[in-house]
Amino acid sequence: MDTASDREPRQERSRATRARLLDAAVGCLSERGAAGATVGAVAERAGVSRGAAQHHFPTREDLLLAALRHMVDNRGADLRRRAEAVPEGPDRTEAVVQMVVDAFSGTGFNAALQLWAGAASDPVLRERVIPLEEQVGRQVHRAVVELLGADETVPGTREAVQATLDLARGLGLANLLTDDRARRRRIVRQWARMLDQALGAVG
Amino acid sequence: MDTASDREPRQERSRATRARLLDAAVGCLSERGAAGATVGAVAERAGVSRGAAQHHFPTREDLLLAALRHMVDNRGADLRRRAEAVPEGPDRTEAVVQMVVDAFSGTGFNAALQLWAGAASDPVLRERVIPLEEQVGRQVHRAVVELLGADETVPGTREAVQATLDLARGLGLANLLTDDRARRRRIVRQWARMLDQALGAVG
Repeated sequence: MDTASDREPRQERSRATRARLLDAAVGCLSERGAAGATVGAVAERAGVSRGAAQHHFPTREDLLLAALRHMVDNRGADLRRRAEAVPEGPDRTEAVVQMVVDAFSGTGFNAALQLWAGAASDPVLRERVIPLEEQVGRQVHRAVVELLGADETVPGTREAVQATLDLARGLGLANLLTDDRARRRRIVRQWARMLDQALGAVG
Repeated sequence: MDTASDREPRQERSRATRARLLDAAVGCLSERGAAGATVGAVAERAGVSRGAAQHHFPTREDLLLAALRHMVDNRGADLRRRAEAVPEGPDRTEAVVQMVVDAFSGTGFNAALQLWAGAASDPVLRERVIPLEEQVGRQVHRAVVELLGADETVPGTREAVQATLDLARGLGLANLLTDDRARRRRIVRQWARMLDQALGAVG
């Protein structure tokens, strides 16, 4: 029979295995695309047996969706950390835009992009990706509205904030194949100016 | 020996086969992703033998790059047609933005997106996709500058135009898994307002 002290390390090991699998799935997606992110490939990358991987994630869709949620959680945590460091004053809008743009780049974004691309031709994956993406979109939107102190009852404000997220997504895509950071920096600055004008901020 | 009249139908048939292969490659990319767009799958979709396909496109990269160029050419022709129909007057900016946003959507855009996603994990493809994308980016940018009558010597103008293309790319991505047209319409309107303000147009 298990004792409590037996169970605890086992639960910890199980959590660690799960975390390793999720990180491996993000890595596989980002480097090989959705087609290359099979349960077998992810298990191998994580140094876990295929059986153990399937114990945690019965199907490939379960694994990939959990990986997407994992990326989203990491991004959410990162956004919250950075939100606290956003300065007050005239540079606030630019800092917020830069924060959003940075959230849509890097390994996590590339992995998500590969999953979106894969979901476009996989109805099972697609049906599960859509609600998660909608939830994430709403969360980031709300965070940006709060950080900018934007009044969404003013016509155009909601769309201007949404456009910021769409721009960030587009910049993430432009950064997929080449290092686009220098150009992106200039666009963030200009976008922040336009956003300040649109939101009626005096700066 | 060939006579001129023998050669002509043969050249025509060859051109028709090539065009069918390119359309099939775009379809395969859009529906199955880069991993599913093999020479065999494309040949089958086009109703062409694998040997005939390889006669036109010796490698998979040749085929996919030609397909990307084919999409780009189609989009270019479509942009030129639509550019002629853009109205003068206060609604011009919105019509131009809508035109750009529409250019980054549909089967052609989805196919290109799949190819970008595939190129992220395929160095051979990547090296060939990058220069073509840069060329396209410059062409669309120049067209938008001309259509808007924007003065790129004014600070911020260049970045505002570039942001329009990045936004269009982001909206294309948002439209990949769901029908996002209604929201997109509202964002185009708001973006056109912000662009008019930024470019100092009186409207």
